[in-house]
Amino acid sequence: MQAPLPEPEPLTTLIEALRRLPGVGLRSARRMAYHLMQHDLTAADQLSRALASAVKDLRHCTRCNGFAEEEVCATCANPKRDGSVLCVVETPADQNMIESSHGYRGLYYVLMGRLAPLEGVGPQELRFDRLVKRASDGVVREVILATNFTAEGETTAHYLSELLRAQGLSVSRLARGVPAGSELEYVDAGTIAWALMERRST
Amino acid sequence: MQAPLPEPEPLTTLIEALRRLPGVGLRSARRMAYHLMQHDLTAADQLSRALASAVKDLRHCTRCNGFAEEEVCATCANPKRDGSVLCVVETPADQNMIESSHGYRGLYYVLMGRLAPLEGVGPQELRFDRLVKRASDGVVREVILATNFTAEGETTAHYLSELLRAQGLSVSRLARGVPAGSELEYVDAGTIAWALMERRST
Repeated sequence: MQAPLPEPEPLTTLIEALRRLPGVGLRSARRMAYHLMQHDLTAADQLSRALASAVKDLRHCTRCNGFAEEEVCATCANPKRDGSVLCVVETPADQNMIESSHGYRGLYYVLMGRLAPLEGVGPQELRFDRLVKRASDGVVREVILATNFTAEGETTAHYLSELLRAQGLSVSRLARGVPAGSELEYVDAGTIAWALMERRST
Repeated sequence: MQAPLPEPEPLTTLIEALRRLPGVGLRSARRMAYHLMQHDLTAADQLSRALASAVKDLRHCTRCNGFAEEEVCATCANPKRDGSVLCVVETPADQNMIESSHGYRGLYYVLMGRLAPLEGVGPQELRFDRLVKRASDGVVREVILATNFTAEGETTAHYLSELLRAQGLSVSRLARGVPAGSELEYVDAGTIAWALMERRST
């Protein structure tokens, strides 16, 4: 349903831009735009600046591939973390969940995705070569695969398991305490702590 | 659930800014931020510019109080519209819905809200004096009250009806074809066209 009403151009442009946010349709985008323009110009201004600054200043950590401001992120640079264990996650959100379980002191590698052949996401797109190189630094002894327990996450874990064991690394997978078919981000921290403890060798 | 992980500052700022969008919580904000930063930097850039431009260039039409780039919006400036009828709506979204019913050729006045005493929104906050002044231009003969058919919308309509009839204006209300308790934005155009036709004098 397009608005037949002539809308001021900056408003149309704003609504179109908001629609590109994941999960936001035309109606939500309109509501957001009206809300910002009518009730919260400060928020609009802050969001504009935050986006510009993030686009400009955010990059990928050369060690874990997560988001960082510096070449190496704060977690990877933390000398208190155990460099002999590397936990592989799909997204920074998953990393946050594992961290909030307080059951892990090792380092991370963030895939920023999962194998999804139907969407054209393969080992090349996810740069598995970089993960293998990172895991082969001589310090890492064990890689914990903490991809989601969905079909695609399991496939990714299986593929990575083969790849990393071929490098002589010890590879484990989060214990199946995580309810099958669910996504890490929506699991409570206690379950994740338990699953970390019960991780099994693959 | 706060992330205990040290997050790069531009990312934290972006997530906080996204949370101020209506209907967006911490998890949605994170997903949006990750999505933009990982998969759609172009969209992030466009949204940043669109927000800045909207904050800078959008203002309120001096006639209808809706959003406009110029002093008077395109609808109010359209000589083909019937200046003798003024339709009062709560939001631009409601105006769009009425317009899409193709049942109306008059002009609009956008309240940008409704009476909500519990939230501290009264006649002063909505600047009812400006509406009365607008409706008393000598050209307007009839005011159609098209506020929502919710408790607050009905209260607003009732209040405005008294106020505008005291000015000698003919005041009508959208016919009760609109299902009671619902909001205009979510009603189909056919029902709205019918309700416009059956509007009753108050």
